[in-house]
This record gives sequence, C-alpha cells and structure tokens, in this order.
Amino acid sequence: MTERPRSAISTSTSDRITVRGLDLTTDLMGKVGLGDMAFLELLGRLPNSGESVVFNAMLVSLVEHGLTPNTLAARLTYLGSPEALQASVAAGVLGLGTVFVGSIEGAARMLQEALAEEGAGDDLQRLAGVIVEEHLSSRRSIPGLGHPIHRPVDPRARRLFELASENGLAGSYVELIELIQAEAELRTRRTLPLNVTGAVGALASELQLPWTICRGVGIMARCIGIVAHLQEEMRDPIAAEVWRAGERES
Amino acid sequence: MTERPRSAISTSTSDRITVRGLDLTTDLMGKVGLGDMAFLELLGRLPNSGESVVFNAMLVSLVEHGLTPNTLAARLTYLGSPEALQASVAAGVLGLGTVFVGSIEGAARMLQEALAEEGAGDDLQRLAGVIVEEHLSSRRSIPGLGHPIHRPVDPRARRLFELASENGLAGSYVELIELIQAEAELRTRRTLPLNVTGAVGALASELQLPWTICRGVGIMARCIGIVAHLQEEMRDPIAAEVWRAGERES
Amino acid sequence: MTERPRSAISTSTSDRITVRGLDLTTDLMGKVGLGDMAFLELLGRLPNSGESVVFNAMLVSLVEHGLTPNTLAARLTYLGSPEALQASVAAGVLGLGTVFVGSIEGAARMLQEALAEEGAGDDLQRLAGVIVEEHLSSRRSIPGLGHPIHRPVDPRARRLFELASENGLAGSYVELIELIQAEAELRTRRTLPLNVTGAVGALASELQLPWTICRGVGIMARCIGIVAHLQEEMRDPIAAEVWRAGERES
Amino acid sequence: MTERPRSAISTSTSDRITVRGLDLTTDLMGKVGLGDMAFLELLGRLPNSGESVVFNAMLVSLVEHGLTPNTLAARLTYLGSPEALQASVAAGVLGLGTVFVGSIEGAARMLQEALAEEGAGDDLQRLAGVIVEEHLSSRRSIPGLGHPIHRPVDPRARRLFELASENGLAGSYVELIELIQAEAELRTRRTLPLNVTGAVGALASELQLPWTICRGVGIMARCIGIVAHLQEEMRDPIAAEVWRAGERES
Repeated sequence: MTERPRSAISTSTSDRITVRGLDLTTDLMGKVGLGDMAFLELLGRLPNSGESVVFNAMLVSLVEHGLTPNTLAARLTYLGSPEALQASVAAGVLGLGTVFVGSIEGAARMLQEALAEEGAGDDLQRLAGVIVEEHLSSRRSIPGLGHPIHRPVDPRARRLFELASENGLAGSYVELIELIQAEAELRTRRTLPLNVTGAVGALASELQLPWTICRGVGIMARCIGIVAHLQEEMRDPIAAEVWRAGERES
Repeated sequence: MTERPRSAISTSTSDRITVRGLDLTTDLMGKVGLGDMAFLELLGRLPNSGESVVFNAMLVSLVEHGLTPNTLAARLTYLGSPEALQASVAAGVLGLGTVFVGSIEGAARMLQEALAEEGAGDDLQRLAGVIVEEHLSSRRSIPGLGHPIHRPVDPRARRLFELASENGLAGSYVELIELIQAEAELRTRRTLPLNVTGAVGALASELQLPWTICRGVGIMARCIGIVAHLQEEMRDPIAAEVWRAGERES
Repeated sequence: MTERPRSAISTSTSDRITVRGLDLTTDLMGKVGLGDMAFLELLGRLPNSGESVVFNAMLVSLVEHGLTPNTLAARLTYLGSPEALQASVAAGVLGLGTVFVGSIEGAARMLQEALAEEGAGDDLQRLAGVIVEEHLSSRRSIPGLGHPIHRPVDPRARRLFELASENGLAGSYVELIELIQAEAELRTRRTLPLNVTGAVGALASELQLPWTICRGVGIMARCIGIVAHLQEEMRDPIAAEVWRAGERES
Repeated sequence: MTERPRSAISTSTSDRITVRGLDLTTDLMGKVGLGDMAFLELLGRLPNSGESVVFNAMLVSLVEHGLTPNTLAARLTYLGSPEALQASVAAGVLGLGTVFVGSIEGAARMLQEALAEEGAGDDLQRLAGVIVEEHLSSRRSIPGLGHPIHRPVDPRARRLFELASENGLAGSYVELIELIQAEAELRTRRTLPLNVTGAVGALASELQLPWTICRGVGIMARCIGIVAHLQEEMRDPIAAEVWRAGERES
C-alpha cells in the first residue's frame, strides 16, 4: 500500500490537536504568545526565555514599514476586490521579494555559507575582508547594509543586537556581520549602516534557521502589517488618490 | 498644495520609528511579543494583560491546520517557483476565503449586526432564536458552527471561551453565540459544535474588532503556518506526490 | 481501485497532445489564433467564423485599460520582486474583482438568471422594467451600466453590439440589456451608458458561457495587458514615482 | 509642475481609445484576433501575416498543460475562495516560475546573451559547443532541453520550427538552439529533446522580444488554461479528492 503524503508538523483527533508534539489547547493556548508559536512552528521546539525575547523582537521590528510599495499594492487591490480580503493581503505579500524583505535571506545566506566551511570561524576579521572584497570586486551590494533613511545607524539593528547580547545570542554570525559592516565602510568610505534586515538575517542564523526560510520570517511579520494597512484603507481610504497620481484621461 | 496620501499607523525619522504613537525600539522591541504587536497594529493601543492572553490564544489556535487545501496550494506553487518564497506564501493565503478562515468574518458579522441594534442585547435568548430561525428558513448554514472532525466539541473553541471567562472578556457576543449554538442543535437535532472560527469571531467582537477585518486576523495567523509548511516542503517534499495523485499520462 | 482525479480537457502521449478532442500540433497550432484557442478551452469546440469575430473582439476590447489600480499594483510589486515576474502578474490579477472586471460576471448573472425562467423571454420590455425596478428600489447599481469617462456612449460596447449584429449573435441577452439600459436612463434621468463589461457580459451569455466563469474571460484578456505594463515598467519605470506619491519621511 | 506618471501604451478620451497608436474600436476590434493584440501590446505594432501565424502558434502551444502543479493549486484555492475567481487564477499563475514556464526565459536569455556579442553569429557551431561545455562543466541543465514524456521529440517544438521555417522566421536563434540540442545529445549520450519552452524561447528571440519578458508570454497563454481548469472544477470538482490524497486524520 502506498502511503499518503503527510506533514509531521501536526496531528489531530476529534478532541486533541498536537503541534510539534505539544497539545495545542493545554500546552500552547493561553500559555505562549504568537511569536513563540511561530518559533515552535519553524524550529520544532519552544524558545527559552532569551530566545523568546530576541525572536519576538526580530518579528516586532519587521511588522510595520509604512506606505511601502507592497502596502500600496495591497490597498490598490482592495479597490477592485473588496469581496476578498485574502486577495489584497496576498498582493501585499507578493512584493516581499529580493529587494526588500528578501535581503534577510541574502544576509543570512552570506553569513551561513561563509561560516559553513571547516575552520571558517577561526579568523572572522579575515573572513569579513574576503567577503567585502568579493562583493566590491564583482560590484554587488552587500546584503543587509545601507539604508536611505536610517543613517548613520539603523536604530532597529542596534536594538536587536543589544537584545541579542543581553540574552546570550550574539555569537559568530553577529560578530561577522559587524566586521563586514565596519570593513565595508572602511573600504568604500561611505556610510553603510547595518540595517534591520541584515540584523535579522544574522540573528536568524544564530537561532539555527536555514537561510532558505529566512525570507519567510519577514513575510509572516509583514503580513500583520499588511492586514493593519487594509483595515486603515477601509476607514480612511487613500488608494484612489494614489491611483489618481497615475495617469487619468478626461 | 495637495497633500500626499498618508498612513497614520507609523512615522519615522532617521533615528526613530513610531508605531501607533509608541517608539518601536524603546517601547516595543524586547518588551512586547508579536501577538501584542498585532493587537497594537489593529486596535491602536497595547492590550492589557487579559486581552493579551486571549488575543494571543486566538491567534495561536489558528496558526496550524495541517495539510489543508491552502497549504497544499502553497507547496505545489513552491515546486514551480522555488526562486520566490513570497509567491508560495501568497498562494497559500489566497485560499483563505469565505469557506475556511472567512467563517471568522461570517460569525463576527452575524453577532455584530445582531447586537448593533438599540436594545438588541436585552433578550439574548430571543435574539438567538431569531438568528437561528432566519438561517434555517433560508437554508443557510450558521457561520461558526459545525466541524467534520472536532465533534461533539471543538477543544479550541472551549479553551478560548475558558480563557475569555478567566480574563473578563466573555461578554454579550460570547453569550449570544453560545445561545445560538444551543438553539441550533435543539432545532436541527444535529451535533453542531461551536468551532474555532466561531469562537474567534465572537472574541474578536468582544475586542471591538469590526467584522470587516476579522478574516485578516485568521490570515495573519495562518501565514505563519504556511511558512512552516514551506520549510517542511523544502526538507521533506510531498508536493510532487500530491501532483502524481492527479492525472499523469504516459 | 480508486481512480485518480482526472481532467477531461486534454490528454497526451509521448508524441501527441489532444485538447478538447483536437490534435494540438496538427489541428490547432498554425491554424487557429489564441482567441479561438480560448473559445475551445471554455466551450469545448472551435468557434464558427461569426463566433470567432465576436469572441476575439470581446477579448481584444478588454486587454488594455491604462494605469488602473491593478496595473499599478503589478508595477509596485515588480519593484520588490524583480526575480519573479509571475508574482507581479498575479498581483495585477488580484485586483480584478467585483468592482472592475467582475462587473462582466454581474451583468451576465443578471441576464442569465432573468432569462432562465420559463417564458421569461416573451416580454423583454416588461422584464427589463422589473429588473430596473428591483435594483433602484434596493439602491443597488445595475451591473454593466455607467462609465466615468466614456459617456454618453462607451464606444467599445457599441462596436461589440455592431459586430454581434453583423454576425448573427445579437439575441435576447443583447436585447434585454439594451432595454434595461434605456429603462434605467428613463427612470433615473441620468446618463447611464452601457459599458464594455456590460456588453461583454451580454455577449458571453449569447455564447452560452455560464455567468460563473465570465469574470475569467476578463481576467484572461487583462492578463495580457498586465504583462505589457510590466514590460513597460522594465524599460520606463514609474512605480517608484507612484510610491513617492505616497508618504515618505525624511 | 511635476508630471504625473504615464503609460505610453494607451490613451483615451470620452469617445476614443488608442492602443499603441491604433484606434481600439475601428482598427482592432473585429479586425485582429487576441494573439495579434498581444503582439501589438508587447511589440508596439501589429504582426505581419507570418509573424501572426508563428506568434499565435507559440501561444496556442502553451495554453493547456493538463493537471500540472499550478492548475492543481488554482483548483485547491477555489475550494476555499469561491467568492473570488481572481484569487484562484492568481494562485495558478504563481507557480509559473523558473521550473516550468520560466524555462522560456532561461532559453531566450541563453540565446540572446550568446548572440549579443559582436561577431557571435559567425560560427554558430562553435558557439553551441561553448554553451554546452559551460553548462556541463558547471553541472547546470541546459534550458529548453529535455522532457519527461515527449521523447525523443517534443511534437510542439517540431511543429513550431516548421511554422517558423515556412514563415521566414527561422533565423540564428533557431539554428543556435538546434545546434545546442544536437551537441548536448552528442556530449551526454542522452536523449535531450528540444522542448516546447525551448522552441518558444528561440522564436520569441527571433521576434525581438527581450528575454526579460519571455516568462510573461508563457504566463498570458497559461492564464487562459487556468481559467478553463477552474470552469471544469466548478462543474466536475476534483480538488477535494486531491486534498484527500493528502493527510486527513479521523
């Protein structure tokens, strides 16, 4: 007999639902917050208290970003499809690619690939130099560095690393991206703040999240912000104005 | 001069981001969890401790639902678009319409419209009778009632109402949907458990969330589960098997 | 043994693909245009020459609509997700709901439900009066009527009905919506042109397309326009300007 | 005064709509088919008769692909969101990434980048050898080659190149991909048929479509097929069965 495809994340019977081995109603509901539930989903266990502080702070820092292209896309979609909120939320999610939220993935990949090699962590200063050199010589920007507004320091990145430090989660990944940032500013003579996606990419790596899923951490947080923007759009609509900013013929 | 469209949710300067009047880095990051941040986004203020327990439990109860049609759609999308995780998450969000998560909206709408009328709350038993009668006579199902697996009681709904009760949030909306559920079982002589979406719809109403945004509460929670399913799909793929369950010609 | 789910639309072997009973390479490729292929997909047979003219004209009239909210959403999505064109196209599709393209569905539903009843076609003038009365008395707008720019006549609607007339496809559905339009202008004393979506809804009904799929006719046409807008966005980008029309803090 | 963002694709006044300089109602509706309209949108002019035959055949060959992962995703989405057909179509579009339809882009990019260099077309045989060598040595698959079912020849690719030849559109891009295919089979001693996406990528290049938009050509064609699958799903639903092929607990 062929087995049917299965997911190992949860099981359920008529009176019991188990998620990652914990009972949803007795172990989780009323006992853990949404951020810890997300940690459980992704990492298969509940966070300890330090991990909880840092992981929740990572998510909290990403929820709200104002009138970004993707929240505008969500609002414009609502103009045409008010019958289906999920369509507008999805439109808002679709802009979270390589350019914005995807830089979390870029930063985490850079750090995880660099530290995956045997002995790579022995000389982080040298490793940072190699990484910066590779990016500069191929004229690629370094993921996680630079911000148009939050300069010379992105206050969210600084706060995240403070929290990581206080909670024993500032390890090699954090150190490496700080060295990369310093080296990049030195080499380019430009202000290149570590931005929030770079900090989240480093901390996701400290938490053992593979880089392939790191974009998803940003997406789940931003999804909350998208819903809030749609709520505001229902009450105080602006999408029609944004539309009029585009061409309209008489 | 015409003003540019604005969102009142957040503002930012080079060194400070404010969300709903609170400083993101000093008031929120490291101090509030993701669920409380979602509450702030939607309701414009942080929850008190009872509201926090209940709102987080609502969200936690909705995160994970196993291999539902929408997580399958997300996984099948990943087969074709591995370069863009946001596309797969959006595909998973798109199935959260009237049939599944949308029933939160249906239940909240039913309760909020019923209790919006002057004096409507004076005789909840009579009101429940009217609502059940309206649905039965027009052969519409009552949103928030019934479940194919969790019978005769959905343990998540029971737990949510316990938590609401312990935290002073079991008001008229909770009472009304319980009366509707009892009346519906009496009238139809069928087992019609209050399900998790019905309970969430009632509690969202207690928290003053308008029914128009209640589908969004489910979407933000399920978005987390979708990301976790995609992480599992990367490691232990099943989408190709699901595909083969469909037609394949030789 | 349970059978696997199957689609009856097409079959294939190593050297032959059949769509709706026709051989893709010998009967279709090089012989029929894209519009006729769409007709075959939806109606299960190729159109005759008159049907082909009218169906292609319906689709052609819907392809391009300028900088609408949904093409703006597609362009804004491209800003963030340039790695995945399908994400931007999908974002553009998501705004094609009840308000814009969905009015094709609304008009087709109104006409098809009205003419589905036994003998309903015997007195179209009376039927039109009933329909207009129902909408006015419940303060609902009549689907397919009215346009902010194309007044007093939508030239696309007029052209579509000319083509239908020349090709023997102007039957009861066309007559009914024309009577509805005239009656609505008379009753409201306002200019209410039959718009392109109303005309397409009537002609889709003449072609026996059920109203439930009529929104899809608009979506397939507009999908072509969305791709063209994304091509233009790659060459002459405007999405960043539209974004700047929204709030941007210093 | 700053100008508002504009699209150069179309303009409209109350009684006239112009697309790429042609009058929509008098020059296009009733005169050109949907495929030619798509050509006009993308290339800014109507096709000549040979181009029309080939471009329509390219699109026709891509419309229908059976129960692929993306049509299953569309059908599963419809289970949850029947109120919004656009959501299901978008879910179907979202799986058209690098793995399936995106290989049109891959093939077109390979050919266009190879022939962009000065004098590159002088020795196509040598160029084909270099391209195959580059892919084999870096263990990358060659876009546009190979098919699990249509072996040793994909009949759609063969037919497309016949039509191109008959219509004077088989130039250097067609020749180059044929040489690449032959060389790849020789070097790998495996059967590697030119598949339909490879042929479409080569012909799109002959038509001067930049590779960056070639994925869109596939998306617009497949969008038609997705709508047809959703129409079938409404009449003869299979999504619930596919769902049951996934895990379901009692």
